[in-house]
Amino acid sequence: MSSLLEQLIDAFRVLPGVGQKSAQRMAYHVLEREREGGLRLSQALAEAVEKVGHCVRCRDFSETEVCATCASASRDAHLLCAVESPADRLAIEQATGYRGLYFVLQGRLSPLDGIGPRELGLDILGARLAEGEVQELIIATNPTVEGEATAHYLSQLARGHGVKPSRLAHGLPLGGELEYVDRGTLSHAFGSRAEIRD
Amino acid sequence: MSSLLEQLIDAFRVLPGVGQKSAQRMAYHVLEREREGGLRLSQALAEAVEKVGHCVRCRDFSETEVCATCASASRDAHLLCAVESPADRLAIEQATGYRGLYFVLQGRLSPLDGIGPRELGLDILGARLAEGEVQELIIATNPTVEGEATAHYLSQLARGHGVKPSRLAHGLPLGGELEYVDRGTLSHAFGSRAEIRD
Ligand SMILES: [Zn+2]
Ligand SMILES: [Zn+2]
Repeated sequence: MSSLLEQLIDAFRVLPGVGQKSAQRMAYHVLEREREGGLRLSQALAEAVEKVGHCVRCRDFSETEVCATCASASRDAHLLCAVESPADRLAIEQATGYRGLYFVLQGRLSPLDGIGPRELGLDILGARLAEGEVQELIIATNPTVEGEATAHYLSQLARGHGVKPSRLAHGLPLGGELEYVDRGTLSHAFGSRAEIRD
Repeated sequence: MSSLLEQLIDAFRVLPGVGQKSAQRMAYHVLEREREGGLRLSQALAEAVEKVGHCVRCRDFSETEVCATCASASRDAHLLCAVESPADRLAIEQATGYRGLYFVLQGRLSPLDGIGPRELGLDILGARLAEGEVQELIIATNPTVEGEATAHYLSQLARGHGVKPSRLAHGLPLGGELEYVDRGTLSHAFGSRAEIRD
């Protein structure tokens, strides 16, 4: 077998859920009938890796210092929605009519893995809440044990700054990943979010 | 969302079995924790697309005009094994102790799709058999309707040149893809191949 081909198969294994067999299929598929698409993917990867960083306001992926959403004058700056990942942010943006802003934690509290408030940018979030513009922090972490613990921490942080914390309504499947919830359920849960009063 | 990110997600969809959700996961995964691996994949894709062509002897993928297998003095040139795809060739090479040579059809006869003998390089194969060195043509097409039709055509072609055609032994699951057969079954079927006498 060609050693460039072996390198390509090996390189595909960096992708999530791609084992040896899938990597082989991908390499063969590209070389057999998608050489142009393969080149496009090569260029898109190189450009994205080089130029896509994080927005300094919300920590979402962005090519610019401040992302388009944070820079938009048409979003409601009184509402801030905290999510674990860019994928969750995108799911909410696509499924709901939400017009506020976001804060992307890029993870969830997990002390055993060394992920504490600092790793999630909660110092930045705290400073943001202290600015006084945000009135409601919509906490959209996943309905998992760590997601709930993170939500609890965030609600305390919000209250400490006089900001109302709220949580998506029940309806999300327990233990599931928000990113994979169907649009209808997610939209309903988002619309029925309840203030956290404990 | 970043437009470079959108381009990357879109570009991932060129891969087999990758829809919008998987493409998103791949893009986020690379940007979140595999930027180095992403660059490696970018380079491997560009290099492979540019430099990997087909061996003029066996039609397998190769960086050189004649692939390493065809150029090897330690392979038995009396045996030639015809397979539909490079993946099938690799499966046989990895599962069996076969030390002969290969011929990669890059498809199977499918008149409705315009795939005839010429598209499968059967003129090249015929010339190869006419050279007189090959004594047995091991036909390892898939046990599907089109694979069987291709096998029948190949066995006629072999006989026309005084070459003994053989077929892998029964044991392969009907309708299945050779590439996904477990090593043991494939190795057994390969070892128990029978001459075609019809
Ligand atoms: Zn932003
Ligand atoms: Zn070759």
